[in-house]
Amino acid sequence: MSDTTDWLTQEESAAWVRLVAVAELLPTALDAQLGTDAGLTHFEYQVLMALGEAPARTMRMTTLAAGTNATLPRLSHVVRRLEDRGLVHRFPCPEDRRATNATITEAGIDLIEQAAPGHVETVRRNVLDALTPEQQRQLYDIAGAVLGRLDPEARLDATSCRFSQRPARDTP
Amino acid sequence: MSDTTDWLTQEESAAWVRLVAVAELLPTALDAQLGTDAGLTHFEYQVLMALGEAPARTMRMTTLAAGTNATLPRLSHVVRRLEDRGLVHRFPCPEDRRATNATITEAGIDLIEQAAPGHVETVRRNVLDALTPEQQRQLYDIAGAVLGRLDPEARLDATSCRFSQRPARDTP
Repeated sequence: MSDTTDWLTQEESAAWVRLVAVAELLPTALDAQLGTDAGLTHFEYQVLMALGEAPARTMRMTTLAAGTNATLPRLSHVVRRLEDRGLVHRFPCPEDRRATNATITEAGIDLIEQAAPGHVETVRRNVLDALTPEQQRQLYDIAGAVLGRLDPEARLDATSCRFSQRPARDTP
Repeated sequence: MSDTTDWLTQEESAAWVRLVAVAELLPTALDAQLGTDAGLTHFEYQVLMALGEAPARTMRMTTLAAGTNATLPRLSHVVRRLEDRGLVHRFPCPEDRRATNATITEAGIDLIEQAAPGHVETVRRNVLDALTPEQQRQLYDIAGAVLGRLDPEARLDATSCRFSQRPARDTP
């Protein structure tokens, strides 16, 4: 079987090993800062941020799952914990009784407003400030190409929706 | 406090959102294939591969941790499970009695030889085949720059050791 395997070249392997290391270490760094500053995982922070930016601060759970790279069971589990902390509230969707909506509470808004500056600082320090503007554009294209494989049906916002086009630059 | 925060631009945010999505989805895809084909997580596979490539198929646990982006407690937990399955064996280091070595067994070698072709196919299909050779080189540089922040003391192999230089291309 291994005779027919297209093994990685040295150059492919080097890029791959580094990508795996980033995928390992980055979530740990994000969780550490948010855990210390707000008692949140990065995933919980993403959930609260998505709700905070939504119209009426409310989203269908299925839409929220797509916006946070999560399966619905995983999201439901996390939202239940956030609800126990008074940061989120769930209720049946008025338009579709089979669906459930989630909304962020005032306490939730307060918590992400408190946590956001430290999070942005962590994102800059660990990733964006290490890259040139050209590398940031390359990263956008590279990650987009990989998401086209990992999420071929463009189920996730990161693949399809808000960021399907490169964002327009400010025109002078 | 938020007045002094250097919030992300639209372009920075777009690159960041995609990187986060890749870091979320890639481990899941790797774990799924290796779980089905070999009953291994990607982290367990990395541990076995590192041992299989080491001289005498043996490494100090501390070196193995650095080679797999792991803390020693996390590695010890996983190696204990691999040992229970007969895939790894631990023993006191002959040169330093305070240190512990790990070695991969014949059963461990058999398992990674069986799992490797499917893993490489998954890596190609989900990542490398989506990128041009130029993008693979860009990814190597970008991930290297990020690892310089996430692992500033170059503790990990991915940051420092085997791949500190871009691999030499084949010369004709």
